[in-house]
Amino acid sequence: MSVIAASSGIAANPARALVCRNCGAEYPLIAQNACYECFAPVEVGYDQAALRAVTRADIEAGPHNIWRYAPLLPAGQDPASRVTVNPGMTPLIKADALAAELGLKTLWVKDDSANPTHSFKDRVVSVALTAAKGLGFSRFACASTGNLANSVAAHGARAGVPSIVFIPYDLEQNKVVTSAVYQGQVVAIEGSYDDVNRLCQELTETDEFEETAFVNVNVRPYYAEGSKTLGYEVAEQLGWRLPQQVVIPMASGELLTKIDKAFTELVEIGLVDDTPWRVFGAQSAGCNPIATALHAGTDQITPVKPTGIAKSLNIGDPAAGPYALEAVRRTGGWMDYVTDDEIRDGIQLLARTTGVFAETAGGVTVAVLKKLVEAGKLDRDAETVVYNTGEGLKTIDAVSAQVGPTHTVRPSLKAAREAGLLG
Amino acid sequence: MSVIAASSGIAANPARALVCRNCGAEYPLIAQNACYECFAPVEVGYDQAALRAVTRADIEAGPHNIWRYAPLLPAGQDPASRVTVNPGMTPLIKADALAAELGLKTLWVKDDSANPTHSFKDRVVSVALTAAKGLGFSRFACASTGNLANSVAAHGARAGVPSIVFIPYDLEQNKVVTSAVYQGQVVAIEGSYDDVNRLCQELTETDEFEETAFVNVNVRPYYAEGSKTLGYEVAEQLGWRLPQQVVIPMASGELLTKIDKAFTELVEIGLVDDTPWRVFGAQSAGCNPIATALHAGTDQITPVKPTGIAKSLNIGDPAAGPYALEAVRRTGGWMDYVTDDEIRDGIQLLARTTGVFAETAGGVTVAVLKKLVEAGKLDRDAETVVYNTGEGLKTIDAVSAQVGPTHTVRPSLKAAREAGLLG
Ligand SMILES: Cc1ncc(COP(=O)(O)O)c(C=O)c1O
Ligand SMILES: Cc1ncc(COP(=O)(O)O)c(C=O)c1O
Ligand SMILES: [Zn+2]
Ligand SMILES: [Zn+2]
Repeated sequence: MSVIAASSGIAANPARALVCRNCGAEYPLIAQNACYECFAPVEVGYDQAALRAVTRADIEAGPHNIWRYAPLLPAGQDPASRVTVNPGMTPLIKADALAAELGLKTLWVKDDSANPTHSFKDRVVSVALTAAKGLGFSRFACASTGNLANSVAAHGARAGVPSIVFIPYDLEQNKVVTSAVYQGQVVAIEGSYDDVNRLCQELTETDEFEETAFVNVNVRPYYAEGSKTLGYEVAEQLGWRLPQQVVIPMASGELLTKIDKAFTELVEIGLVDDTPWRVFGAQSAGCNPIATALHAGTDQITPVKPTGIAKSLNIGDPAAGPYALEAVRRTGGWMDYVTDDEIRDGIQLLARTTGVFAETAGGVTVAVLKKLVEAGKLDRDAETVVYNTGEGLKTIDAVSAQVGPTHTVRPSLKAAREAGLLG
Repeated sequence: MSVIAASSGIAANPARALVCRNCGAEYPLIAQNACYECFAPVEVGYDQAALRAVTRADIEAGPHNIWRYAPLLPAGQDPASRVTVNPGMTPLIKADALAAELGLKTLWVKDDSANPTHSFKDRVVSVALTAAKGLGFSRFACASTGNLANSVAAHGARAGVPSIVFIPYDLEQNKVVTSAVYQGQVVAIEGSYDDVNRLCQELTETDEFEETAFVNVNVRPYYAEGSKTLGYEVAEQLGWRLPQQVVIPMASGELLTKIDKAFTELVEIGLVDDTPWRVFGAQSAGCNPIATALHAGTDQITPVKPTGIAKSLNIGDPAAGPYALEAVRRTGGWMDYVTDDEIRDGIQLLARTTGVFAETAGGVTVAVLKKLVEAGKLDRDAETVVYNTGEGLKTIDAVSAQVGPTHTVRPSLKAAREAGLLG
């Protein structure tokens, strides 16, 4: 993997080292995503004293976006250093009608479709590319199931830095166009996401890509930290306290592990009280390797060949799967998966009861929420947050056969009356 | 028109009366949109002393959405009274690369695609429906070119109030689905927007629609005020000062007149210094009745039969056209219009240089910005704000034939090399 000197520019920040998630070996803060000792992934470790010095007031005085949490992130402390579309501080919506329909007492929807490119990926990309710029990279890239490509391409355009995004060739057209409109390079790979990811790993080893930062490959540890902001924000928006249950979509499983990490940190550094939380993971029946391992009671995740409409979650060989299993088991949560029909119903249920139009990933998460309530896995009396991480307009085909005009009439009162609009 | 008692619930607020835009006749704050004396439209008039009492600090202490401006609006002062998805405080983006390409010194993009249903319409709908609820209406409706229907349907779902939206039958499919997914009634009218609008006016006169608030028909005066927030926000985001030039898309022309009204108010009540601003209007060549009247030097707006891809702006008989002409003439601005090809180029230019993916209305506005700079109508040295009022994902077909993958390759280094990705 390409290694660029740590000293080359990330501003002073609380990150201390890259730490192996398996053996604990430590490395400088460079572009590296696996341990040289044991080949497990590395993640960012912090100077705990620096984190403990951060107050609620420090954060509240920050901007109305993810950068208010810069004191808890590995990059972006200096506003001038940021490569960003300023995502974050998306709405936390009290969903009383949905709660009533599901039989839950208190339910919130964290609506991350409100980000600039309409998925939570803007968070991870902003942190990854800010780190990447500091490390001296001059081109931005990713291996994507769709949303990540949208975000990297938009960030490149905003920053005036060339981008090259890699996607499976059979993505939803809206996601392809929304990557290509920014006019960077868009490479459609004749294979699955897992093929795309493998190719991108190989490309990072080539001379031609030495100056290219793949947000979720060679600078992945920084990327992953961006997801912590989805945990911080919910806690702050609840008035600096933790929810009791959270339901989170999983592709690689990284997002889930980082929301859990955010809650753990907030308790450790004293920004919230130490109240218990339980983490629940959502997948589709077409791509359920992590949930299947949980159900089987094993640590062994068997890769699958993904199918089905929840394309943004279609990672058959999930890099952070073991850590997602660990978080769910440790907190007493659970995982489940749903069919394409349940996903479509989930999208419509959320839209009808909250006014939020989610993409298929959101449909997965709402449908799993419903299934977990019905199965008694979620406590109906415990305060619950469900994460919608993407936008319905990007996967319009998921519902376009189900919904449409309820009436088609000529423009006259007479026609309106005949159509039954006047009772 | 249906008239409901004024006393029935709009919380104490600075609005004083409905005032005829032509003869000045005054009416109570009810559901009424035209003057009984002269048939001209009425608008909301305020208690100037109440407005003058509002300070910057009052506003800055408010929520991070349009309701921070409640002291300057006709509804929503009491948070519990709001019917809203909490739009507003969308990004004001410094667009240096676009400015450089156009030869402008200082350019900002006000990106209103960041609203919950991804157009500026959430602002007007939130104000209209909050007023409507206060006035006792029990169903929400609109005549829409697309975005308005998306917003009314989402607001209805969020509030748990039935909605019925009327759209032309030939709208972009994404906008139809994004109205229908919330599962209210969606009525496709076999005609143009102007036909839809006429039918909706007739419907408001029927007994069956007596309790139905059409946001842009019987409660239009409140609706229109919501657009003021797009003026207030830009001034606040610039540090409480006015931009010198603003470029604004026009359909009915209402938005343009209300941004101008916002600037006028801010000066009158002392929240900004009295510095000159010039207002510029943007239409498409397929629907240019207001710009054509300006170019002809007449007050007479001749209705047109709209064509072309900028469907959200396709109002052939623009209700606020005369007031838009007045604002542009008074401030020394100008109007122009652009072809469908220029609109597509405008979308791509904005995306490539700023990372903002606009719908056709945004393409119109950016293309007109360019045309006005080239024609010497805009001062290259004056600080300029261009308004993007809608989201590219909603009009994906406008660019899907132009942009796509730059490469399609098999998942191997060899294939990547053959495709030229390795230099
Ligand atoms: C909308 C959406 N939600 C959730 C995820 C899952 O993210 P992770 O790979 O971190 O599990 C993705 C990943 O692409 C996504 O696009
Ligand atoms: C995206 C967008 N921009 C601008 C407008 C123009 O609004 P107005 O009718 O107030 O001129 C519309 C109207 O539908 C719209 O949808
Ligand atoms: Zn190790
Ligand atoms: Zn009058």
